[in-house]
Amino acid sequence: MASSLLTTPSQALALAPTGAAASRGGGGSARVFFPSSARAAQQRGGALGMRVRASVAIEKETPESEPPPTFLREDGSGAGSGSVRERFEAMIRRVQGEVCAALEEADGSGARFVEDVWSRPGGGGGISRVLQDGRVFEKAGVNVSVVYGVMPPDAYRAAKGEAGKNGAAADGHKAGPVPFFAAGISSVLHPKNPFAPTLHFNYRYFETDAPKDAPGAPRQWWFGGGTDLTPSYIVEEDVKHFHSVQKQACDKFDPSFYPRFKKWCDDYFYIKHRNERRGLGGIFFDDLNDYDQEMLLNFATECADSVVPAYIPIIERRKDTPFTEEHKAWQQLRRGRYVEFNLVYDRGTTFGLKTGGRIESILVSLPLTARWQYDHTPEEGTEEWKLLDACINPKEWLDL
Amino acid sequence: MASSLLTTPSQALALAPTGAAASRGGGGSARVFFPSSARAAQQRGGALGMRVRASVAIEKETPESEPPPTFLREDGSGAGSGSVRERFEAMIRRVQGEVCAALEEADGSGARFVEDVWSRPGGGGGISRVLQDGRVFEKAGVNVSVVYGVMPPDAYRAAKGEAGKNGAAADGHKAGPVPFFAAGISSVLHPKNPFAPTLHFNYRYFETDAPKDAPGAPRQWWFGGGTDLTPSYIVEEDVKHFHSVQKQACDKFDPSFYPRFKKWCDDYFYIKHRNERRGLGGIFFDDLNDYDQEMLLNFATECADSVVPAYIPIIERRKDTPFTEEHKAWQQLRRGRYVEFNLVYDRGTTFGLKTGGRIESILVSLPLTARWQYDHTPEEGTEEWKLLDACINPKEWLDL
Repeated sequence: MASSLLTTPSQALALAPTGAAASRGGGGSARVFFPSSARAAQQRGGALGMRVRASVAIEKETPESEPPPTFLREDGSGAGSGSVRERFEAMIRRVQGEVCAALEEADGSGARFVEDVWSRPGGGGGISRVLQDGRVFEKAGVNVSVVYGVMPPDAYRAAKGEAGKNGAAADGHKAGPVPFFAAGISSVLHPKNPFAPTLHFNYRYFETDAPKDAPGAPRQWWFGGGTDLTPSYIVEEDVKHFHSVQKQACDKFDPSFYPRFKKWCDDYFYIKHRNERRGLGGIFFDDLNDYDQEMLLNFATECADSVVPAYIPIIERRKDTPFTEEHKAWQQLRRGRYVEFNLVYDRGTTFGLKTGGRIESILVSLPLTARWQYDHTPEEGTEEWKLLDACINPKEWLDL
Repeated sequence: MASSLLTTPSQALALAPTGAAASRGGGGSARVFFPSSARAAQQRGGALGMRVRASVAIEKETPESEPPPTFLREDGSGAGSGSVRERFEAMIRRVQGEVCAALEEADGSGARFVEDVWSRPGGGGGISRVLQDGRVFEKAGVNVSVVYGVMPPDAYRAAKGEAGKNGAAADGHKAGPVPFFAAGISSVLHPKNPFAPTLHFNYRYFETDAPKDAPGAPRQWWFGGGTDLTPSYIVEEDVKHFHSVQKQACDKFDPSFYPRFKKWCDDYFYIKHRNERRGLGGIFFDDLNDYDQEMLLNFATECADSVVPAYIPIIERRKDTPFTEEHKAWQQLRRGRYVEFNLVYDRGTTFGLKTGGRIESILVSLPLTARWQYDHTPEEGTEEWKLLDACINPKEWLDL
């Protein structure tokens, strides 16, 4: 049991989920986030002079020999209740199994995912699966996790749109910490062949309980996630296929989703110091709660189920494409950009590193190998230049 | 000319030197820092509700065909004045030349440093030298730069120990931005052979002018820097030689320097999320101004002059040591740790990335190649384990 006293709002906010949560995978593999509205209010709070202190104790995880039927607490809100939590956990665990099976088959080498299972005495846990140095995949990680934690009251009130000054609620009542639940699936797949693109996807569900001292207060919930493609070379057929599968998934629910979440994706995976996107995008959304909850559960499920049809056909087409050392070196340079984005900007990674999440689960997103070459600029008109240009100037890949 | 409006204290502080300073090398190659007292006060300011807005215009650098005699402004405080600024610039430029010559000779392949020179219309500039893919060195960068910038008044007052609330000075007078001068040499040398260690060194000098609206106010100055060694394997003879040269340099000035700066180095190069140091340390100091200024100029000079005798004999001994693929893979994993430290924790790098410094100069510190392997733990008692153990539990290498 480690504990630390935190003195700044941003630290308290960043560390909150670790409370009863995660020294292993807590932020990194499940990628649990507070809504941006809460973060913004928290930042406003900082500027207004709010000062939050939180004592954070990190609960140590216990390795398990095999996955339990559920990581949910047996408290009525969890297992057997038919709740959104329960159905979301079941969905991400099903998808983890299906994606891993499809990847093993595509790898075709007999290489298998290695599984690490862990739980926490107070509830929650996770399953990390990693396939390393296969025939097709250099490194592939598919993680699920379930986290029970506690968030500072200000973040909760901000999520409800009633952020006040000095840590007091709108009615002047001093609120206590707010318990939350989060579950997610997170995956990064790095193939060996420079013409086979890297894929990342992550879907998560977040719920707050009512504050312990105000049992009747409203609960908050939201969904987040996305799927995005990072090739080293543009094969237009592949990029169009990938985006069209994302669009099909979105269009089943709302015609505004694909254009909105495509732009959100381009904006999120931005390497500011390079003025480049990490890759060619896909869809990304966060803090989504302004639609029917059942509809959004179905939408997240549809997106997660679209990973295999969006990605595996591309891998099948490109896994044996002949390549040169120069192609490989360029792939390695782009992998360096992947490392830069993940270590400097990615919310899940930076959050996980700060909160003492399980490092191996968090950094499984990094490629096996990467490269940094001084002042490398591809010549205009080359295939390398075309990729870079599309990362600097995001394109529309579909006729909308 | 790019400009942006900043709204948070930390952003304003982080970006200030960019003011009249750097889109190329401004933070990264010169590694200009505010004193930790100023940073702490700024953080307190944030918590207290201080809000600083600063409009920052980044002055574009101009490439030069060859290095000018000096990057100092011709304003009496610079060229020809015999000032500390002038002598410090002359020292780092001499050391850059000497270190590069020694490295080219050690490389022995005829590979030469490639030089990029740049200046700014308002004064200041820099010289980046990079040798890539030599016989001995995979990537070696040695940069000098001179920056004229403007810092927020709060940072200046904090440095003087009189941080106030709400951006007002102790006497209630609203102070203006404070011009500063900074110069530094910064270098990272990554050899190819896994038994030849990586070296980093960086020495910098910082001065504030009096605020423009209070010409009689006291000026501040300080020195910072250090030299540290990052091997993949411990060759005790080499590590002892390296530390003894650092100690000799320190002992010429103050017997307390080596133990103090050795510990500071172990504390600074700490990868918190791994609970490991980046390497086997050396010396590190910052914000040093509580000694005679001439003495500290001589001390920084002695340290910089110790780089060649501390490092080149080690390179000569290890550059041709036979090695296996396993040795190389372990070196690549340790290079991954180097990337993690530099992108997540290093003040010069993170500052440079945030302030729009010249990316290629900042990230020249990253190795040409690096590796991340899931859950790799060396077996106890192996040479890899011994290195890791020394990174987790810093050792005393000398009989003090």
